[in-house]
Amino acid sequence: MQVEVEIVEAPLEEYVPRPAASADVGALAEFWGTVRDEEGGTKIAALHYEAYQSMAKRQMETILLELETAFPCQRVHVVHRRGWIPVNEAAIYVGVQACHRKEAFGLLTSFMDRLKQDVPIWKTEARPC
Amino acid sequence: MQVEVEIVEAPLEEYVPRPAASADVGALAEFWGTVRDEEGGTKIAALHYEAYQSMAKRQMETILLELETAFPCQRVHVVHRRGWIPVNEAAIYVGVQACHRKEAFGLLTSFMDRLKQDVPIWKTEARPC
Repeated sequence: MQVEVEIVEAPLEEYVPRPAASADVGALAEFWGTVRDEEGGTKIAALHYEAYQSMAKRQMETILLELETAFPCQRVHVVHRRGWIPVNEAAIYVGVQACHRKEAFGLLTSFMDRLKQDVPIWKTEARPC
Repeated sequence: MQVEVEIVEAPLEEYVPRPAASADVGALAEFWGTVRDEEGGTKIAALHYEAYQSMAKRQMETILLELETAFPCQRVHVVHRRGWIPVNEAAIYVGVQACHRKEAFGLLTSFMDRLKQDVPIWKTEARPC
């Protein structure tokens, strides 16, 4: 499985080209996690994501390779943004390409669950003035 | 939930803009189902999708609204291509926007399962000469 993990400090869109087609890929599952204007019942203006970068990157790669056993896929691309992220902008993109959709969705949803538990990325809120 | 279902006869990309952000949307889950060069162990060059169009469109809308009870989401956009689709090109796009990823993935994966079972769209293969 081809794995690419990036941690970046600018809007994610520029790091995410439409994944190239391939004759053995039947399924592309993508996820964008975006900052909403509410966090735990409170209105917010932005979230600040901080990461222990080298460890977070390595940890994401490890999780993906562990999940490959259960969900064999061809390619996965993760881009996590750090720093201040305003409402409406994406904090994370994950794109998974596989022969079949079951593996693509399995890897993608399991990765998102593990990410929240096991990767040293933390966030703080900015409230509107 | 805002539902848009289209059946088209050209490459899907032109029908799928990047979904607009919205302050109450925290999750965008997208799926592209693409024609592979193999179908049931046989090399193929293309698939032909035919649909009983008005019924297929209505049926997809009905399934989405049924699934909304279990997986409340904000917006869903389905574009299914019909006619000849060469290897590497997409036959279906589904994009789901929700507050949280659990609902977005739930609606998306359940819809794909129901689509295969319940919607009058059928396919035939073209083998390479």
